[in-house]
Amino acid sequence: MSGFFGNIAKTDVVFPVFYGTDYHSHLGTKRAGMAFYNKKTGFQRAIHSLEDGYFRTKFEDDLKHFEGNSGVGVISDTEAQPLVTNSHLGKFAIATVSKIVNAEELEKEFLDGHRTFSETSQGSVNPTELIAMLIAEGHDFVSGIENVFSKIKGSCSILILTENEIIAARDKLGRTPVVIGKNGNGIAVASESCSFANLDYEIDKYIGPGEIVRITADGVVQLRAPEKEMQVCAFLWVYYGYPPSYYEGINVDEVRYRCGAALANNDDVEADFVAGIPDSGVGHAMGYSNERQIPLTRPYAKYTPTWPRSFMPQTQDKRDLVAKMKLIPNPALIKNKSGVFLDDSIVRGTQLKDNTRDLHAEGIKEVHMRIACPPLTYPCEFLNFSRSRKSIELATHTAINQLKGTEEVDLKKYSDPESEEYKEMVERIRKNLGLTSLKFQKLNDLVNAIGLPKEKLCTHCWDKSSHFKK
Amino acid sequence: MSGFFGNIAKTDVVFPVFYGTDYHSHLGTKRAGMAFYNKKTGFQRAIHSLEDGYFRTKFEDDLKHFEGNSGVGVISDTEAQPLVTNSHLGKFAIATVSKIVNAEELEKEFLDGHRTFSETSQGSVNPTELIAMLIAEGHDFVSGIENVFSKIKGSCSILILTENEIIAARDKLGRTPVVIGKNGNGIAVASESCSFANLDYEIDKYIGPGEIVRITADGVVQLRAPEKEMQVCAFLWVYYGYPPSYYEGINVDEVRYRCGAALANNDDVEADFVAGIPDSGVGHAMGYSNERQIPLTRPYAKYTPTWPRSFMPQTQDKRDLVAKMKLIPNPALIKNKSGVFLDDSIVRGTQLKDNTRDLHAEGIKEVHMRIACPPLTYPCEFLNFSRSRKSIELATHTAINQLKGTEEVDLKKYSDPESEEYKEMVERIRKNLGLTSLKFQKLNDLVNAIGLPKEKLCTHCWDKSSHFKK
Amino acid sequence: MSGFFGNIAKTDVVFPVFYGTDYHSHLGTKRAGMAFYNKKTGFQRAIHSLEDGYFRTKFEDDLKHFEGNSGVGVISDTEAQPLVTNSHLGKFAIATVSKIVNAEELEKEFLDGHRTFSETSQGSVNPTELIAMLIAEGHDFVSGIENVFSKIKGSCSILILTENEIIAARDKLGRTPVVIGKNGNGIAVASESCSFANLDYEIDKYIGPGEIVRITADGVVQLRAPEKEMQVCAFLWVYYGYPPSYYEGINVDEVRYRCGAALANNDDVEADFVAGIPDSGVGHAMGYSNERQIPLTRPYAKYTPTWPRSFMPQTQDKRDLVAKMKLIPNPALIKNKSGVFLDDSIVRGTQLKDNTRDLHAEGIKEVHMRIACPPLTYPCEFLNFSRSRKSIELATHTAINQLKGTEEVDLKKYSDPESEEYKEMVERIRKNLGLTSLKFQKLNDLVNAIGLPKEKLCTHCWDKSSHFKK
Amino acid sequence: MSGFFGNIAKTDVVFPVFYGTDYHSHLGTKRAGMAFYNKKTGFQRAIHSLEDGYFRTKFEDDLKHFEGNSGVGVISDTEAQPLVTNSHLGKFAIATVSKIVNAEELEKEFLDGHRTFSETSQGSVNPTELIAMLIAEGHDFVSGIENVFSKIKGSCSILILTENEIIAARDKLGRTPVVIGKNGNGIAVASESCSFANLDYEIDKYIGPGEIVRITADGVVQLRAPEKEMQVCAFLWVYYGYPPSYYEGINVDEVRYRCGAALANNDDVEADFVAGIPDSGVGHAMGYSNERQIPLTRPYAKYTPTWPRSFMPQTQDKRDLVAKMKLIPNPALIKNKSGVFLDDSIVRGTQLKDNTRDLHAEGIKEVHMRIACPPLTYPCEFLNFSRSRKSIELATHTAINQLKGTEEVDLKKYSDPESEEYKEMVERIRKNLGLTSLKFQKLNDLVNAIGLPKEKLCTHCWDKSSHFKK
Repeated sequence: MSGFFGNIAKTDVVFPVFYGTDYHSHLGTKRAGMAFYNKKTGFQRAIHSLEDGYFRTKFEDDLKHFEGNSGVGVISDTEAQPLVTNSHLGKFAIATVSKIVNAEELEKEFLDGHRTFSETSQGSVNPTELIAMLIAEGHDFVSGIENVFSKIKGSCSILILTENEIIAARDKLGRTPVVIGKNGNGIAVASESCSFANLDYEIDKYIGPGEIVRITADGVVQLRAPEKEMQVCAFLWVYYGYPPSYYEGINVDEVRYRCGAALANNDDVEADFVAGIPDSGVGHAMGYSNERQIPLTRPYAKYTPTWPRSFMPQTQDKRDLVAKMKLIPNPALIKNKSGVFLDDSIVRGTQLKDNTRDLHAEGIKEVHMRIACPPLTYPCEFLNFSRSRKSIELATHTAINQLKGTEEVDLKKYSDPESEEYKEMVERIRKNLGLTSLKFQKLNDLVNAIGLPKEKLCTHCWDKSSHFKK
Repeated sequence: MSGFFGNIAKTDVVFPVFYGTDYHSHLGTKRAGMAFYNKKTGFQRAIHSLEDGYFRTKFEDDLKHFEGNSGVGVISDTEAQPLVTNSHLGKFAIATVSKIVNAEELEKEFLDGHRTFSETSQGSVNPTELIAMLIAEGHDFVSGIENVFSKIKGSCSILILTENEIIAARDKLGRTPVVIGKNGNGIAVASESCSFANLDYEIDKYIGPGEIVRITADGVVQLRAPEKEMQVCAFLWVYYGYPPSYYEGINVDEVRYRCGAALANNDDVEADFVAGIPDSGVGHAMGYSNERQIPLTRPYAKYTPTWPRSFMPQTQDKRDLVAKMKLIPNPALIKNKSGVFLDDSIVRGTQLKDNTRDLHAEGIKEVHMRIACPPLTYPCEFLNFSRSRKSIELATHTAINQLKGTEEVDLKKYSDPESEEYKEMVERIRKNLGLTSLKFQKLNDLVNAIGLPKEKLCTHCWDKSSHFKK
Repeated sequence: MSGFFGNIAKTDVVFPVFYGTDYHSHLGTKRAGMAFYNKKTGFQRAIHSLEDGYFRTKFEDDLKHFEGNSGVGVISDTEAQPLVTNSHLGKFAIATVSKIVNAEELEKEFLDGHRTFSETSQGSVNPTELIAMLIAEGHDFVSGIENVFSKIKGSCSILILTENEIIAARDKLGRTPVVIGKNGNGIAVASESCSFANLDYEIDKYIGPGEIVRITADGVVQLRAPEKEMQVCAFLWVYYGYPPSYYEGINVDEVRYRCGAALANNDDVEADFVAGIPDSGVGHAMGYSNERQIPLTRPYAKYTPTWPRSFMPQTQDKRDLVAKMKLIPNPALIKNKSGVFLDDSIVRGTQLKDNTRDLHAEGIKEVHMRIACPPLTYPCEFLNFSRSRKSIELATHTAINQLKGTEEVDLKKYSDPESEEYKEMVERIRKNLGLTSLKFQKLNDLVNAIGLPKEKLCTHCWDKSSHFKK
Repeated sequence: MSGFFGNIAKTDVVFPVFYGTDYHSHLGTKRAGMAFYNKKTGFQRAIHSLEDGYFRTKFEDDLKHFEGNSGVGVISDTEAQPLVTNSHLGKFAIATVSKIVNAEELEKEFLDGHRTFSETSQGSVNPTELIAMLIAEGHDFVSGIENVFSKIKGSCSILILTENEIIAARDKLGRTPVVIGKNGNGIAVASESCSFANLDYEIDKYIGPGEIVRITADGVVQLRAPEKEMQVCAFLWVYYGYPPSYYEGINVDEVRYRCGAALANNDDVEADFVAGIPDSGVGHAMGYSNERQIPLTRPYAKYTPTWPRSFMPQTQDKRDLVAKMKLIPNPALIKNKSGVFLDDSIVRGTQLKDNTRDLHAEGIKEVHMRIACPPLTYPCEFLNFSRSRKSIELATHTAINQLKGTEEVDLKKYSDPESEEYKEMVERIRKNLGLTSLKFQKLNDLVNAIGLPKEKLCTHCWDKSSHFKK
């Protein structure tokens, strides 16, 4: 997904940008970067890979070289960022949370005009460089960002650090969040509001869809009013967001408790314990356990001393090893017991299948799986959503394929929990994963747990209801 | 505390010793090491500091150079280990979990005999070198280890890797655990049995106090029978052990649930939520919440993506910063709410005091603190117990000092929960920490939660009941 | 100055590009980079700083990730290189040896056209990015490079790695060299021909001024014929080039021997020994010693085991320390002796002054300094020539300032070795540096030592005789 | 060979010990270490491998943690050093330049007494630990060092850093040098006196064979008078020593010039140039060229910017690659020319053979090899002399084997330059190496070039004339 953090204040911001960016580490595993501006040395920038180390470790040595009263940082799931660009608008550093579906088409247009690209991301154009070039086509930053809004298919939230200010823009349909924090000394801006508390910032404002603001140490000025339409990603609450964060004023962990409670209210299975798959299912499990008053336990203990979450090895072999090694089963809590297990979602289901097999090997009696959202049926086209694979890899499509010998079916039926097709598919997934029982959340219950009107939420991966902006 | 792991098998053990040792990372923050033996290159050894990095990161590069069907690893809270020693008993690698109270006295004896010490640990003798020298005084390993048992005051469990076997010895009074795991391919031996599951070993035997065994890939042979007397540390279950581990057949997390339940059964405070201080109070909180059916929540979310547990900066400033930064408060769960908070123990109480202040700043209504063990009154003399400070630093002594102007009081009264002195002391601690209410576990309830006869447990830090072996 | 190396062959070229580039390490101290192309993974690139480590050490870890039958490398004294650029001409990697005097002007033109720059070099535009953008304005590589030739003031030699070939272009006036090497397996191209021998390439052709060639594993095709006019830098032979290299068919070390011999033929000072300042004066000293048959010795031994040449600390303090530490005086060869010392040139003279003071402290009787070129009077405007400082820093200008109270004098007279002004200036420099005697090469003798017609050489720093191309 | 450096002064010595030790880098390629003492933190010590990096790079990060007015450093060709030892004599750091032929025997004696060894060096006992244990058997440092002198077969010079002083002891037969330097601020002690000049120390005294001194910032006190007998290694002047160093008051580079001159005086070959094999033959070549007045040139240029001398890869393949890559042939100086090449010695001759083949490939007419010492016939038993191989690997033994079918011959005849056997052997070596002509120095000329009485020199490797001390 990626996430960014910016800060501009009356005092040096290297420390808060370092920690504020670090608090977005759950959003990306590829690259991270920070840029600062100060009058003496101009723009300073560092980018490191996160593929073989953690953000704080990687940037610790850079800190002593940095200074500035303004800066931005980014944890990126894809390209190297932030870029420092020179343009007729002046020099600026730019970080984005974006997905550009029509990147190749835009690239071709630029190349045809004898333009060059300097940055690449895994062999393709670097989306942030493309966005910077689109911005430089404007006569000022606002018209440049509007150029981005109108040219790209996908989504794009932007932080720009100039010599004088930070300019923040939220995706035109608000798919990804941008939140403003304030204290007496300056202004912070972030993807995740959980980054504010320990830096002594308080949430001041949720930037609206398509809204553009100019931020200085003294305050925030609106440069473009928000759009009415919004399509904020529902998965932010279900999985991506860190528990203490808020989007649109709604707290992440509370949504998870409500998700778990909703599942509990539709459930009557008997069990000795409730447990969340670490870490993605823990909040949901707390909600379920509290609602049904079945004891919460830890049949799988995550070995947190050395397995922090944001570690993503390059090969599948290594990923499987990490998946296995970081969770330690506790036979005392498993043997001859029945358990309800909660998780946020099922993507491919391979890891869940392995876990279930291990639980049976440890002597569990029953494994009842409860999933906090409906079955994932349509790959995301709007966000850089690492969990959203090609449709063929989804557990739902695998099941449909097994049942029908093809994926070319009327998927709508499979999204309707009352249909026979849905039931057949869920039953097949249950069997594939070796579960005693399996239930998914209903979309309506999920929308209620979040608490926004359905039309404000993007629920595309479950019901194919969203669209590119006009 | 420190912890070790050994493995001897029909196949190469570099991988299992690497991961098996890593699973002891919660037991030490200073040094770690591994040693292997193979016929071609003999003993191979590596030691790294853990003060600026994690075990797996530090030893990753060494792995490709190592090979062997037998090996030992150690996570050490103090000295560099394992040592490779040459002696009339042959060459061996040695790792220990030990505390030697009379180290200086033993050192002097050796020096007077014109002996030399090559290793140091923070300026003093390296305890493992001292133990190796005591072993070499014997005519074989058993008589040498008995020499250790009889000469040292403190405690000492030992792993020895020779060219032919691993020799494991548990402390004479069994203060620290040594557990044997087995599978078809070989034998593992560890401080923490949670290291077995993911390496496909199952618990085979808990080595008894003073027991010595010889381990080969084919099996375990007893070289010295266990003593009858045992003084296993009760704090292993309360705090030190990793949740899925077992000692004397008793599971750690289950003890914590029972601790929380016992506190719940003695409590009737009204509250909106229950929460555990991450990570030390989480198991206790689950037991409490499940028993009283008050919802468990996460008013403090630990930022696990980049703050794994076993990180211990050198300066107090940095430690305070880490303490602050790794926990993110969630205002949604705190504001205008009453909460019951669980933790394992109170040592100095400084961090708890800071947390309570932060909770009030976020608008909490009431903070009810429940502690899984009785007040810590007597510093540990038997283990290398990092949480056991000089008595003057303990929250209990601070309170007594404030009340009586001296620590020279009859401490026994302060250990009796029925006494006025105890109540006065607890009330003072409560005030010092800014809590709405504060309750400690009763010793009897703790002993029952563990489930061993009291005389088998060392409960010295609460009632001064233990002794050095005769 | 910077230097580059390219190789395209029927087999993998990672090894030869690694070593071939390393052999240009004497030409730059800031950045280095390599890029390779292979069909499977496309372009691969790595850039590292040379400010805190050597080329081979810095790139060793990258080697295992690289593969390709074509590649380019560069040792850069200024900007990060090579860049990988996407353009309407296709993707290409580009490395340059360039100085762009009118960079700001060209940058402004691009910015005014709403173009963006992604790369910076010490806060300014990255010259190689600018050149890549100028190339992309052409309809093919040749017209693009001609666009570079016509737009930039300064000098520019270029290596371009495409998916199919290497394109090499030498500066329009041939200020910097580009040499082609050949063997049965492929073609190499380099700034320094000394890079060929150990990779089993033999010099095939010296690319002419403004010549452009297309290189494949099968051979070299001329894309643009050379210009008649040439202004190759005379300093290449005097200082910059590595002894075994050739430019225009003329060997570097032989020129240095002839320089020393020419100085010897104009000299009759009596002395006990001859010595070269390591490493810059050694070749010149050999020529002098051989000619006058005064023994060559090493009164200063360079501590080569740990002080390789290409190390350039950032601060003047550190530079002075390195200058001092890397040379060890040998009292046995200094005390009560008279010596003739040779060096390539005097820039500021500060280090020479320190050395002379040290020689006196060791008890030397006489220090006769002989310089292989005339006094440096005009800063270089054509190359990125690290030794060419602002005129005020030159020892000549300091002396003139001291003599006349101004630098605003007719400098031509100071370039004429027969004038009183020249003699007065040299005498002043001698005094400033604490030398017994001081003689500079005459320009005519230098030109003869090189062996090219004077009009083919740039001798601007001595007689202000060169010009920007028309 | 190894080399050490110590310093004790009125001010902090971290900087001088760092550089003073670095100046011994030509003496070892395996391990290096430094130890300091200060009252506040006691002994501080660091050891690093030199197998993958240079001394200064490896220890740079340690410097900020070190402080002390006394310290020792060592460049070791074998074991990890210095060791910090605790003993009845107090704590001390110890560094040695030693070879212990009877190490196994001494180890066994200690093991039989139930003593332990903590350190190993490539699987064997660490010689410095053995020496420390022998010292601790004495009732004071002098009797302890005398115990070393009487027990070990081989050689041993020692630096001991205590809390109060540095104790320096030279090998009983003075095989390796120990030199004292002095200035107003303190005392330095070193293997190589070339380490003094840039740290502003002047040679004060050459410690004699078996002499022991106590060094404080105030001066040097003799603890044991020197022996009369001396067997200082002649090879120190021929190869090991750095040119500006002195042993017994005799300068290294001057000896090399005299060696070259002596060869010249016995030679009348006609040639176009003289050249030294870098770096080992350069001094000898200067002496030869000066004497015969044949021009000195550089047909092989060492690529010094990135190939410092003290680099020793682990595998023969890599060593051959380094040997090839670090020298660049200059065709201009080779083609159709006759050259006299000087080197210090021939060990196996493999590299010389490769060089000669390359010279022929470059078109040389004649290669006349002149060697600064007689043929190496007897492996060294007294020093840790890396160039001294098993006799079978020596070029002399290979030749004898080829000629006689056995090495079991009267080697004495082969050491006599007048014998037929000697001539036959040299002729065979010449052919093996592909040389036009080959001449070795006569032993008498070498002894004269050094200038000490023959009985004071160890010339064992040429005439088997030395012995272990009684």
